[in-house]
Formats: sequence, structure tokens, C-alpha cells
Amino acid sequence: MPEENLTLHTDAYELSMMQTYWGKHLQNRHAVFEMYFRKNPFGNGYAIFAGLQHVIDYVNHLGFTDSDIKYLKSTHFFNPKFLDYLRHFKFHGTIRSAHEGDLVFANEPIVQVEGTIVECQLVETAILNMVNYQTLIATKASRIRTAAGDDPIMEFGSRRAQEVSAALWGTRAAYIGGFDSTSNVLAGKLFGLPIAGTHAHSLVELYGNDYDAFKAYAETHYNCTFLVDTYNTLKSGVPAAIKVAKEMGNKINFAAVRLDSGDMAYLSKRVREMLDAAGFTNTKIVASNGLDENIITDLKMQHAKIDAWGVGTQLITAYDQPSLGGVYKLVSIDNGHGKMRNAMKLTNNPAKITTPGKKQVWRITKRSDGKSEGDYITINGENPNLEKSLYMFHPQYTYINKTLTDFKAEPLLKTIFKDGKQVYHEPPVGDIKRHANASLASLWPEYRRQLNPQDYPVDLSKECWQNKQDTIKKIHNYVNKKLDN
Amino acid sequence: MPEENLTLHTDAYELSMMQTYWGKHLQNRHAVFEMYFRKNPFGNGYAIFAGLQHVIDYVNHLGFTDSDIKYLKSTHFFNPKFLDYLRHFKFHGTIRSAHEGDLVFANEPIVQVEGTIVECQLVETAILNMVNYQTLIATKASRIRTAAGDDPIMEFGSRRAQEVSAALWGTRAAYIGGFDSTSNVLAGKLFGLPIAGTHAHSLVELYGNDYDAFKAYAETHYNCTFLVDTYNTLKSGVPAAIKVAKEMGNKINFAAVRLDSGDMAYLSKRVREMLDAAGFTNTKIVASNGLDENIITDLKMQHAKIDAWGVGTQLITAYDQPSLGGVYKLVSIDNGHGKMRNAMKLTNNPAKITTPGKKQVWRITKRSDGKSEGDYITINGENPNLEKSLYMFHPQYTYINKTLTDFKAEPLLKTIFKDGKQVYHEPPVGDIKRHANASLASLWPEYRRQLNPQDYPVDLSKECWQNKQDTIKKIHNYVNKKLDN
Repeated sequence: MPEENLTLHTDAYELSMMQTYWGKHLQNRHAVFEMYFRKNPFGNGYAIFAGLQHVIDYVNHLGFTDSDIKYLKSTHFFNPKFLDYLRHFKFHGTIRSAHEGDLVFANEPIVQVEGTIVECQLVETAILNMVNYQTLIATKASRIRTAAGDDPIMEFGSRRAQEVSAALWGTRAAYIGGFDSTSNVLAGKLFGLPIAGTHAHSLVELYGNDYDAFKAYAETHYNCTFLVDTYNTLKSGVPAAIKVAKEMGNKINFAAVRLDSGDMAYLSKRVREMLDAAGFTNTKIVASNGLDENIITDLKMQHAKIDAWGVGTQLITAYDQPSLGGVYKLVSIDNGHGKMRNAMKLTNNPAKITTPGKKQVWRITKRSDGKSEGDYITINGENPNLEKSLYMFHPQYTYINKTLTDFKAEPLLKTIFKDGKQVYHEPPVGDIKRHANASLASLWPEYRRQLNPQDYPVDLSKECWQNKQDTIKKIHNYVNKKLDN
Repeated sequence: MPEENLTLHTDAYELSMMQTYWGKHLQNRHAVFEMYFRKNPFGNGYAIFAGLQHVIDYVNHLGFTDSDIKYLKSTHFFNPKFLDYLRHFKFHGTIRSAHEGDLVFANEPIVQVEGTIVECQLVETAILNMVNYQTLIATKASRIRTAAGDDPIMEFGSRRAQEVSAALWGTRAAYIGGFDSTSNVLAGKLFGLPIAGTHAHSLVELYGNDYDAFKAYAETHYNCTFLVDTYNTLKSGVPAAIKVAKEMGNKINFAAVRLDSGDMAYLSKRVREMLDAAGFTNTKIVASNGLDENIITDLKMQHAKIDAWGVGTQLITAYDQPSLGGVYKLVSIDNGHGKMRNAMKLTNNPAKITTPGKKQVWRITKRSDGKSEGDYITINGENPNLEKSLYMFHPQYTYINKTLTDFKAEPLLKTIFKDGKQVYHEPPVGDIKRHANASLASLWPEYRRQLNPQDYPVDLSKECWQNKQDTIKKIHNYVNKKLDN
């Protein structure tokens, strides 16, 4: 795993606020922050949580180095005594989070950080940066997996990823979300992902013709996938691939040909015929070139003869929505007398209103069929498992409601760091991937479909809902009191 | 600068091909690859080149470590003797490139790598990954700079950037493209960028009211920008900011208030009135919240009273087009007898056809007004400066042409690495930024405008154009020759 100290990978305002808390002797004030996003990405019915491994690495390396302090001093923004304080800063907070591969939904906490206001504030930027991106990509990958059915799908996006760590962590997230392999060798090494890749057009250009290039490749590799579109797919690429395969016989496994341009629906059918006619009925056809879940679905509707898919740009940048937009908000704060009180943002944009209080998310499943009934958000240690029946209602349209009896409730937020110490260690990424897949199976198809899925219920408990209304009222009263100018 | 060995940050097929070249004793075959993109991003008239510094770092750290070799062995994809060869691999190639801050345009080489086929192939993925993203962001930043006029613009996107290196290198590219500062402290430290940032909503939430929060901030900072929209901008935020500023008097610089939600056009006008009425005519109004060049232009059309702009997601992810789509293609290769011949991809997609030959790009400027007349691409050491008159014609619509006499020609591709040794060292990033700005000034406004700019000419010399036609013909003949199956 990459070992790096990213303590300064934070927004300047986190440090400015930390200086205020320190200056006003509030640096140890107990606080709870929660990360959530406001809308499922891509119009999808769910998201797949990812990014935790990088967050764990990051938290384990927190601490200001001498060179960090020297740099901060050079900016002249900070009080030297505050910088002395930072020099001794250690993260002692508690982090609860969804596990990677968990399904998560809009408007529920997916990461919760509890500790001193100072340590909670410092980690905001990095947690958002990592979880926002990786959750986005795992979710995009899941959509592509759905479109591709059981076909192999390969992540090919490194050259178009937004810089190095997107290529690396992005392909890991894609693997969690349903991809089978990556072209990125470093990601393979760091994360134990299967790597895939054969050759580029340049190999054919070097030889100046398909036949010599494929022959050379076949003489140096057992498993051969030939890229057949450098000059002309049907006239030169595929005939050359077949000729080489016949000449090499058992010395190679003629695994596949790859199409990277042109009309994929038409070409794949012609290529299938050519391969079959030559007796290579087991040789697969791999497609790449600007693919996403919509084009894959469309090609399948046209009965394109494509067996495996290489997906690059559209996946690794989440091209149609390149940001999840997750936020990190203070929800509970010590009132100065050792009692936690609600914190809430109440702004001109109703969509930006937060739900106050330290919360837990419970995934409610019907025991009889094992399917998810929705998520149920509680505060103050409520445990739905102790209830005989559960009243679930839509937090805005409260007439949408149901009462469950045959249910079980599982908490989404699990402890990762306890008082600064890592208490959860992630399973191998293959297990995370299987967990994501199993989680999806518990979701009704109506929530899983790509286009206009049903809204999965994310409800507040009565107590949580009432607490929010009360807090809004309290703030309204404050706002409407005239300020003495 | 970050020191890291990213040798395995490459696509698996690069290594597969390298194994073929090695296995066929072609590993030292001389080759030239060029990177270019096919379309200016965002419908813009130009792009601003960035990414070179990271490429330089990357190339300087190339080399397979023992742990890399051990990993590659574990995949069972590679011949152990080939891995022994990799163990001793060193990059001895020559890299020519645009300088950061140079204007670059679609369909011209912006990076050129010359060396053995093996070393050229290895670096493809990382060069594309770095230059694609950073050029994209520098260009997006330039568009936002144009919209903002002379107003300060601040990069606030770390939490929405696609993982860590996008946040860091992205904000450096944004600075080159025209931004004034970044919120990312680590980027400030690594790249010497000015950092900016004050406080978040959480500060106000902690105190439970705007006044106490602003007062605390003012007592711990001289320069104060108050975020006024936590509860209610006009009723509580701005009145509290004014009250604190009056109380603190000369002890603080009441620099600005920041608006982060609501109707920016309306609110900024009311806030301006309130500040002016209280005597704070020099206090600025900063806006943030989903801004991009279009919203900034629109707010200016509405005469919003906004003095400075914080831009996040839309910039750092290049939200409306999150990939530049640059490619890296073999253009020239030793024919096996020490003579370079053309290499070219000729595929079913005309847009994917490359221009063969090792090229140079000349920026043609009219001496009388110092303005750019277009770019002129040559091969084989042609130097337009030796010509009395220059015939420039559109490579597809050849009836569009002109003949210049009063011109000078400056080469775009400059040597960065010579035979593996770095010969160019970048100037400080502030100089790069000034260079980008000066370059833009040489461009006619018709090429610079945001919407439907004029097409900047990117022409081929007669020799380069003829060479392309000849190569196409040659390949056509090859394709149409029947293969002996």
C-alpha cells in the first residue's frame, strides 16, 4: 500500500478554523461530523461505498512534519504558538463508516467522525476527496456491470484518468463495483487486482502489417488477443489473425480479437462469421472505444457478437457526472458544559439543510425474503431491533409510510477507528467485491434498474425527524430575533 | 516535489509489447511517438499545455525495483528472462514537448518521445495520464479567468477532485491557467502556490450563532472573510459580520463576506448595500457554490456585486468535459536497416487517422502586429524561417489558404530530455503562469472568445501533407492486396 503523509492535503480554512478553536481554548470541544451525498449519481437507484482503504491509510499517517510546520510558518497566516500546538497534534478520533462494497444511498451518513472539533475539522477535505471519487467510480462500474451481464469487463482508463491516484484508486473502486480486471500494472501490484492487456496499434505499425505483428506477438506469448483494426479490420486484421492462429496451432491460445474502432455492431457480426468459418468458434471478440453502460446495452440490443468489454474514459472519469458531491457537516457539538447539542446548517437552499444529531443508519430487511425494505436513520442509541413493529415514513412526503413487523435491522456505520486506533482491518479486495455483489442481490430489481429506478426509502425515525423539526424551529427563532447592531 | 517511482503506472499491454520487441530482438529499434488531442476541449479555441513538471518527475524516477520485478513474476504473464532485462532497464530517450503555459491546439504534436521502441512504449500511459488531465484543467481555468475578468479567482475543489493527485496537480494547472490561489495547503507547499481560505459553516454551527463565531474568528485572525449564509444571509449573517467589524475596528481587516448559497445576483446586491450603509465600502463580496465560466458570465450580466470567485467542482473535474482525450501514436520507426520510415494508423474512423513522420510545430506570427497567424507542422527538418514566403493551407479544405511574407516562426516542441538526461528545468510556476497569460495576448480575440471561437489554423507543410497522402496510398495498396490465407 502507498505510504504517505497527506496531513496538509486539507483546505486552508480547516487550519484557520483550528487556529480559532485553539485560540479560544475550544480545541478539545467534542464534536460529531457526518459525510453524506444529496443525490444518487447517474440517476442510479443506489451507490456502492468505496474509498475507505485510502482513508485508513491517510488517518494512520496523520501528523505535521517539521517541513509542514516550516511551510505553514512561511505563509505568515498562522500564530507561531498555534504551529507549536500543531507540531504535537495526534488524531485520537473515532471514525465510523460504511464498509467498502456496502450499498449506500443519498441523504444518509456514510462516514461519521467523532472527536475533538480540531481533529474532526482537519480530516474533512481528504475524506471527502477520497470517498467522493471512489464511491462515484464503484457506482459507475456497477452500472456497467449490470449492462454487461456476465461478460468480462476490463478497466482500460489509466491514460484518461484525472492524474495518477485516480487511475490507481479508481480502478480498485471499479473492481469493487464489478469489473474483472485492470490494465494498470501498478494498481495490480498495490491492490492485488488481476491485470489485463495485450498489444496496441503501435505493434502493427512497427511491423507495417498485421500478419508480421501478430506472428511476432504469438511467438512471444501463449495467450493471444490480436488488435485487428490498425489498417482494416475485415480485409487485413482478422484474416491475418486467423492465418497466424492456424500456423501456430497449439503453440498459442487464440483467446480473442479486439475491435477498437468502426461500427461495432456490424463488424462484430462479420468477425464472428470469419472466426467461426475458420474453426475458431471459441475465440472471443473484445470491444473497446468510448464504451459506457448505454452503448453496451445498445450493442446488446443489436445482437452484436461481443463477448468482453474494455471500458476507459467513461468509467474512470465518471464522464456523465464526474463528481458525487458528498459533503461533511457538523451534526452535534458539546454545548460547553459536557452535553451534546444539535448542530445544523439552515440556508436559503432547502436542499442544503442538514439533519442534526449523531445518527446511525439501519438497513431494514424483510426476514421472509431477505430483501431490503429501506434504510432507517436513528439518533441517540435507538435500536430498531428492540421494536416489535417499525413505522417507516418518507421524511418529506409523510403520507408515504408503512409498518413492518417481520424485519431485521443492521447498522451501516461500523467502527473503523476507536479513539485514534484502527480497530477494523479491511478484507482482501476480492472479498469486498463479492460483498458488493451480494449486497446488490438483496435489492429489488426495481431499485437496481438503470433508467428511472424506484426511490429506495431513506427514512428518519420519529425521534430523528422530530429533532430536526425542533432544531429548525429553534434556528428560525434565532434568525428572526433582531440583532442589536 | 513528490518523489516517487511510478514505473508500473503503465498499461499491461505496454509490457506485453515490450516482451515481444525484446523476444524478437527489436528492443533497440529506433522510434518516434507523438502525443496529440483531436479536439480543443469545452468548444474552446485553444488549450493551455500543462503536465510537464509531473512528466519530468516521472521520467527521472523510471526504473523497475526488485519489488516491481517480483510482482511481475508473480503474474506469470512474463518470461523470466525478459524480467531480467527489465531489471536493467534505463530510460535513454529524448523528449521534446511544449512548455507549460504554451498555447496548444488540436491535431498537432504537443509531446514527442524519441528513442528505442521499448522505452517509448513504456512511458505512454503516464505521459497521457498527466498531460491529458493537467492540460484540460489549465484550459478550463483559462476560460474561467476570461469570464472573471480581473477579479480574483480561487480554486476550492479539493474535496471534489478525483482523488489526491488531481487535487494537487489540478490546482497547479488551474494556477497556470489563470487562478490566483488554492485552498489546498499541500499544493501550496509542494508547488509554491498562494493559499486562501477562511472558515466553514461548522464554525458558525459550533457557536450556534453568527455573531459569536465571527467574533471568535476576528479575535484569532487579522484578515477576516466571514461566511454569512449558515442560517440566514441578510437577517443574521451580514448584520453579525458588520457588528463584529465595528466592534473590532482597526484590530482586523474586514476583507470580505462570502456567499455560498441562495440567489447570488439578488443577495450580492443587498449585501453590498448593507456593507456600504455601514461604511464598509472596501469590504469585498466573495461568491462560491457550483460556479463555472457560464454562471460567472451570467452573474456579471445581472450586475451582481461580486468581487471575487471561489470555484470548485466545475473546475477541478472539468465537469462539462472531464477528459481531453489525448492519444500517443507511433509516427516514425526504423525500417530495420537504419532508415526511418513512416508509421500510421489508418482505421475505419477517419478521425482516428494519424499524421505520419517526426514533426515540428511552428507558431507563425506576423511581425507587424505580433499576432499569431496559425501553426505550421513540418517534417524532416524543414525550417519556415528560411523561407521568404510561407504558403499555409487547411489540410482538409485546401481551398482555405494564405501566403505570408512578414512572419516569424517559433518551434513549439523543445528538448526536455536528451538521451535520457534532463536538459530543461522549469521556471517557477509564477513565471509559467505569466507566460501563459502573455501567450494568450498574442491570440486574436476571435480565437479567444468562449462561445464559437474561430478555428485557429493548424496546417501541414506541403511536404508533411504530401507524405501523409503517400502513406495512406501505400497502406491502401497493402490492405487491398489479398492475404494468402
